[in-house]
Amino acid sequence: MRIAILGAGAMGILFGGCLSQENQTWLVDVNQERVKTITDKGVKIREMDGTDRLFYPGAVTDTADLPQMDLVIIFVKAMFTREALEANRNLIGPDTYLMTLQNGAGHEKQLLAFVDRSHVIIGSTQHNSSILADGYVNHGGGGRTAIGLLGGSGSCLQKIADTFTTCGFDCVISDQVQYQIWDKLFLNTAASSLTAILQVPLGFILEDSYACEIMEKLAREAVAVANAMGMRDFQAERVIEDIKNVLSHSRGGYTSIYADIKNGLHTEVDTISGSVVEAAKEVQIPVPCHELVVSLIHAMEDKEKLVGKGQSS
Amino acid sequence: MRIAILGAGAMGILFGGCLSQENQTWLVDVNQERVKTITDKGVKIREMDGTDRLFYPGAVTDTADLPQMDLVIIFVKAMFTREALEANRNLIGPDTYLMTLQNGAGHEKQLLAFVDRSHVIIGSTQHNSSILADGYVNHGGGGRTAIGLLGGSGSCLQKIADTFTTCGFDCVISDQVQYQIWDKLFLNTAASSLTAILQVPLGFILEDSYACEIMEKLAREAVAVANAMGMRDFQAERVIEDIKNVLSHSRGGYTSIYADIKNGLHTEVDTISGSVVEAAKEVQIPVPCHELVVSLIHAMEDKEKLVGKGQSS
Repeated sequence: MRIAILGAGAMGILFGGCLSQENQTWLVDVNQERVKTITDKGVKIREMDGTDRLFYPGAVTDTADLPQMDLVIIFVKAMFTREALEANRNLIGPDTYLMTLQNGAGHEKQLLAFVDRSHVIIGSTQHNSSILADGYVNHGGGGRTAIGLLGGSGSCLQKIADTFTTCGFDCVISDQVQYQIWDKLFLNTAASSLTAILQVPLGFILEDSYACEIMEKLAREAVAVANAMGMRDFQAERVIEDIKNVLSHSRGGYTSIYADIKNGLHTEVDTISGSVVEAAKEVQIPVPCHELVVSLIHAMEDKEKLVGKGQSS
Repeated sequence: MRIAILGAGAMGILFGGCLSQENQTWLVDVNQERVKTITDKGVKIREMDGTDRLFYPGAVTDTADLPQMDLVIIFVKAMFTREALEANRNLIGPDTYLMTLQNGAGHEKQLLAFVDRSHVIIGSTQHNSSILADGYVNHGGGGRTAIGLLGGSGSCLQKIADTFTTCGFDCVISDQVQYQIWDKLFLNTAASSLTAILQVPLGFILEDSYACEIMEKLAREAVAVANAMGMRDFQAERVIEDIKNVLSHSRGGYTSIYADIKNGLHTEVDTISGSVVEAAKEVQIPVPCHELVVSLIHAMEDKEKLVGKGQSS
């Protein structure tokens, strides 16, 4: 298959590298230096056993000379999804599938501006990856990857799942992908923004009764939205227990929203807690805590800009 | 009159000093050094015109030898109200009035453990004061002071209002004191906790649309509670305009909750936004934003303790 991956970040490099084992694979990124490094030296993946694996996918900033793809996987930060697809629209033909494995829910909305529902693949992966250097990532953990078509059915899906599995990403086709996306979202939406606002590690939520109470409120709101969307099986108490369990195994961990706030950067809050707010509007479920938390994160993003420039003092 | 003032902080010193002009006045504080400074040197008040005024009220840590008072004014931080009254219970006789001019609503609940409703005076003052040194305060601004009995009527109230006025605190008796307390509370509850969470000056609320949106939500919740309590005249839009007006004149200002969070101290959030949450329970009005904001402040108070001790990382 011909596969293009938009975004040569941690996840893009992991998937691009591994999928290049049996596919014509291109990494597409706006960062010229990064693209040059990958072109010159390939991509290197440090596996969990400490060994490094080296792959040579293509890498480009400009896709004008590339053919239409069988599959385009979007791994840019969610706020750049539309921009990345627009810049590389020529990769998308009538038979091209667009796939999102990005964190959070609702990414399919962006994709539907470029292909119809029968060519949108949504998915959720348990693999994670972090950048060690340009073109060099640490494959921090693996597990199941589940994918599904947003609408209709296509034999192509099995072919995609097969090559994912052969290339190291144990991949199943599921008609419950939204369920899995939300199951993963609960932890993110209940813990990420909260620890970012408080600027604390994940374990703080378990140690502080006030933080824990807020986490539980956020989890309950998200569960109510998911259930109203038709995923009726989620039990708030069970979800909260699952979240606490994950937190207890990552007490010293920090989320990406935490890090972005700390570093004065724009965060992905809109695709995490913000995606719950968006979904809540559609199913008319009140989510006051999510709304407040998303607004607080955005205010914190603006803080450096406004207070830093001395406009406020 | 015999007047005791519990708490020789900024407001206690301002009122204690001025009221000593025509009353037997004692400042009561647990801080021995502060009491000694006041006993030795009196209290000094820097007025808005830059002049200093010097007064010599009594100052004690232990009130065992003092007589029962006509009036006890509570100016300790709200979380110490009960403790302060218990430690100085001997000042309270059958004819003693207890007065609270503390920030926030609901302080009368603490006072009712010591006297009945006909001896509780609640009030609201526009005077403010900040500490320059032990026994030395800056009288930052003045205005109207309104007082009223919680229950019944008493001729003593006029006597108290008169001496307040004579001593420099333009004081009126009002049967609308709760109204005035809440009118003042709106600004505090909508701006204090918010700027503390974001760690920004007051003006940030006007400059950032997300912060402004949160402020408006908090104001709307508080107005709904006040109206449900029987103060039906508050208009959310008007209240929000008033708040914006005050903020525009104090853009560089910081609130005490902001300062306490910054300095790792316990805050008065329970008597400000927390008092709205308490009142909301009684009138059964949902205040999800207030609840979240109060919990966030408490989590921030705990942060230093928990994260500082390295339990979380």
